Amino acid sequence: MNPRITIVTLGTRDFDRSLRFYRDGLGFPTTAKEGDPIAFFQTGGTRLALYRLQPLADDIAAELPLSPGGFGGVTLAHNVEQREQVPQVLELARAAGATILKSAEDAFWGGFHGYFADPDGYPWEVAWGPMFSFSPTGELVIQED
Amino acid sequence: MNPRITIVTLGTRDFDRSLRFYRDGLGFPTTAKEGDPIAFFQTGGTRLALYRLQPLADDIAAELPLSPGGFGGVTLAHNVEQREQVPQVLELARAAGATILKSAEDAFWGGFHGYFADPDGYPWEVAWGPMFSFSPTGELVIQED
Repeated sequence: MNPRITIVTLGTRDFDRSLRFYRDGLGFPTTAKEGDPIAFFQTGGTRLALYRLQPLADDIAAELPLSPGGFGGVTLAHNVEQREQVPQVLELARAAGATILKSAEDAFWGGFHGYFADPDGYPWEVAWGPMFSFSPTGELVIQED
Repeated sequence: MNPRITIVTLGTRDFDRSLRFYRDGLGFPTTAKEGDPIAFFQTGGTRLALYRLQPLADDIAAELPLSPGGFGGVTLAHNVEQREQVPQVLELARAAGATILKSAEDAFWGGFHGYFADPDGYPWEVAWGPMFSFSPTGELVIQED
């Protein structure tokens, strides 16, 4: 098994709303339109996809129970190159309709970060830290002790 | 905002169990050891990370309710180059302790796929399809109509 995540798919409760949030609000490039069955985004690293929640559950297994709310245990991270970009990205997300879960603040691990929830409540961390850098092709490099 | 997912973090109920599943069972490279606070994997595309579930919830917001079970709405995908690798990867995951949610079968969108659940129940899709290929650096290319 190749160690890689190729796609992260978010199950949406309102596909068009989520499409507009990511495409128009955050500016993630995609050819998807309202009413399409699926949206793939041209994201660096892993591709982001949107799919309607119930068909996504059905695709995995019949009768798969849906989580009735609360934190689902998965976070997506968006690391930035400069510390001051953390509040800027949070504000961009808020203006696009996100809920701020944590405003930009110092993190216990030595960085600076905040969280927003997308229209379905999926938490994205916006983070900067001295142990993170980027390769020439834009991939995250983590300096591990 | 740069269109990219830099890290996907899974909140684990038993960190060491999940570390062994990904590191020893699936063979994802990491320098993390049992008892560490966090594990980063050297995955292509987005980095995979493991973190304990309650501290992960606490890091987002105080009193963030945990989902009491059921499908959380997020899937991770592992695309493969050859159709016959789908059952092979599912069997590798099963041998490593995963639960098979869907055995390899034809998908309605023209591909061939299955799903397994990792030790915390996070669903991974193993997929092959004629519309998927890989760039020279291993990134997923999606042929969109």
